[in-house]
Amino acid sequence: MNIDRITPVKWENGLVKLIDQTKLPIVYENIYCKDYQAIIAAIKTMQVRGAPAIGIAGAMAVSLAAQNIAAENFDEFYNQLKIAADEISAARPTAVNLSWAVNRMIKFAQNNKNKSIEQLKKLLIKESIAIYEEDLEMSKKIGKNGAALIKDGMTILTHCNAGGLATSGYGTALAVIYTAAEQSKKIKVYADETRPLLQGSRLTAYELVENGIDTTLICDNMAGWLMSQGKIDCVIVGADRIAANGDTANKIGTYSLSILAKYHNIPMYIAAPSSTLDLSIKNGSMIPIEERSVDEVIRPFNVQIAPQNVKVFNPAFDVTPAENITAIITEKKVYFYPFVDKLNND
Amino acid sequence: MNIDRITPVKWENGLVKLIDQTKLPIVYENIYCKDYQAIIAAIKTMQVRGAPAIGIAGAMAVSLAAQNIAAENFDEFYNQLKIAADEISAARPTAVNLSWAVNRMIKFAQNNKNKSIEQLKKLLIKESIAIYEEDLEMSKKIGKNGAALIKDGMTILTHCNAGGLATSGYGTALAVIYTAAEQSKKIKVYADETRPLLQGSRLTAYELVENGIDTTLICDNMAGWLMSQGKIDCVIVGADRIAANGDTANKIGTYSLSILAKYHNIPMYIAAPSSTLDLSIKNGSMIPIEERSVDEVIRPFNVQIAPQNVKVFNPAFDVTPAENITAIITEKKVYFYPFVDKLNND
Repeated sequence: MNIDRITPVKWENGLVKLIDQTKLPIVYENIYCKDYQAIIAAIKTMQVRGAPAIGIAGAMAVSLAAQNIAAENFDEFYNQLKIAADEISAARPTAVNLSWAVNRMIKFAQNNKNKSIEQLKKLLIKESIAIYEEDLEMSKKIGKNGAALIKDGMTILTHCNAGGLATSGYGTALAVIYTAAEQSKKIKVYADETRPLLQGSRLTAYELVENGIDTTLICDNMAGWLMSQGKIDCVIVGADRIAANGDTANKIGTYSLSILAKYHNIPMYIAAPSSTLDLSIKNGSMIPIEERSVDEVIRPFNVQIAPQNVKVFNPAFDVTPAENITAIITEKKVYFYPFVDKLNND
Repeated sequence: MNIDRITPVKWENGLVKLIDQTKLPIVYENIYCKDYQAIIAAIKTMQVRGAPAIGIAGAMAVSLAAQNIAAENFDEFYNQLKIAADEISAARPTAVNLSWAVNRMIKFAQNNKNKSIEQLKKLLIKESIAIYEEDLEMSKKIGKNGAALIKDGMTILTHCNAGGLATSGYGTALAVIYTAAEQSKKIKVYADETRPLLQGSRLTAYELVENGIDTTLICDNMAGWLMSQGKIDCVIVGADRIAANGDTANKIGTYSLSILAKYHNIPMYIAAPSSTLDLSIKNGSMIPIEERSVDEVIRPFNVQIAPQNVKVFNPAFDVTPAENITAIITEKKVYFYPFVDKLNND
């Protein structure tokens, strides 16, 4: 598998190499960032996107910032690093992984204040690479756990992009697909285009085709008909947040898919790192649903497709009730419905 | 209701006035055709679309052709008219209504061969206007029959465009909505954008807003979530073909909607003229499903949104099984499920 082509952020020869995801799938182009400001710009313009990928980029931005600090002692060094870190965290304030990764880097610096500045600069690089490698390791475990559910010859439907481009290069839902393919299982994938932002056609179709997976693109409203024709063996998607009872928030459209899958007796799998579990909330009704701009629906790619004065309902996510989910796949194991107590006790 | 603004084809002062639907919803522009070739061009470029509207345009094209014929006797007149008629029928060979309407005009000419050429030219204009008026009358009956199902305060979900722009100006599914509004019922409408060709956002949203209906646009994958929030009271869509048992072919996505509606205990209505009933076929499995071009999915509005080398599945229609349909509304009456024998005996 050509994982390098879909690794959205990587430390390479003292620079941070990104894939400019705003140009996909038309043009594949790397950006090389030599200072943390360049990474902030890339995060803000969504050249790098996907919560885990943004986290890795943020950590590496802290490493880059460290390299360019001229300081005599730790306190001086730390103060300058902290200023950069705060700026990096603010690039996309809602991405939890970004502040998590930046905080981890800052704490790491504090915990190593006894080291020389030169040593610390090197250790910070290692730490940000560790964040990348841990994410990759976790993706591979999700892939391995999930691939046990995929039989030779199966056809899988996925939605949005829970792939390499959103993570360290291997994904969550797509990690299951990549692992099954690496196990020489002959699989086919249908990808929902995923309106309004089209992550399915722009990113999922791109990375699956890039990795030689037999991929067919559909519009979101075709999934049910495809299932009725007996063409889908299972559905695998990612998750943005999973409540303690297993209710799962994910990209809008996932809820509909779960009902269509149930109606056609097709298993519905969620693949996500265990960090996606939010045990502080009992069920999905407590997950807030972000509503996004009218323009995503009526003016995609700056082409106006609807009257300017029509109202628009544009929720970014929906919540799939646990009873519609066959299993949740994490890096730890596969949890089958009913989930109650299982998710809490691991 | 401002029906003139959404009447896609009309005879006016010796000319045929069309709405250029390729420019909607951005620009409202009329085209005035003074010969049948101009109408053929408009049909081919989809400035006029929707099977009933194309039929009316075809009939009026025959009338226009008749006006420009210089002939001494009926046979001479008829031969020239027939050449034009064949050309008109060929503009979109798959639209059943087009050849039906053109044939009706040709037979009408034959049945009036004893009239003078000048008289016949006038009668042909009257006959093509009659086709328009009959369609309008039928739409209003569908609207009236369907509106009996709509209670004050209801919110209706629709898909694709089964509206005035596809017919004589009043529609089928949207006729029900217009009639309910004319009966002073306070209703709200959600319109699916209907990928890939976006008839929902381009045409349905346009004509509903134009007529003062409270309209909200959604992407197709949002319908299920909307239903789960208790925001939808019924679904009304049109039909392309209805089998003898009630199985209904309509725009892709209708099948999924029918399952989502059933899951949420929401009535699902089909509104269509009785001519849509095809009693020659027993059930939906015998309805052929047209697959359309890859480009509709990967390059909408000439903007490439997916990798060029991905496979695409793009069926234009799907078939909703009769058991998922609460009622079929025609100009004759409302038929409730189960339909067997009812559809045959009217």
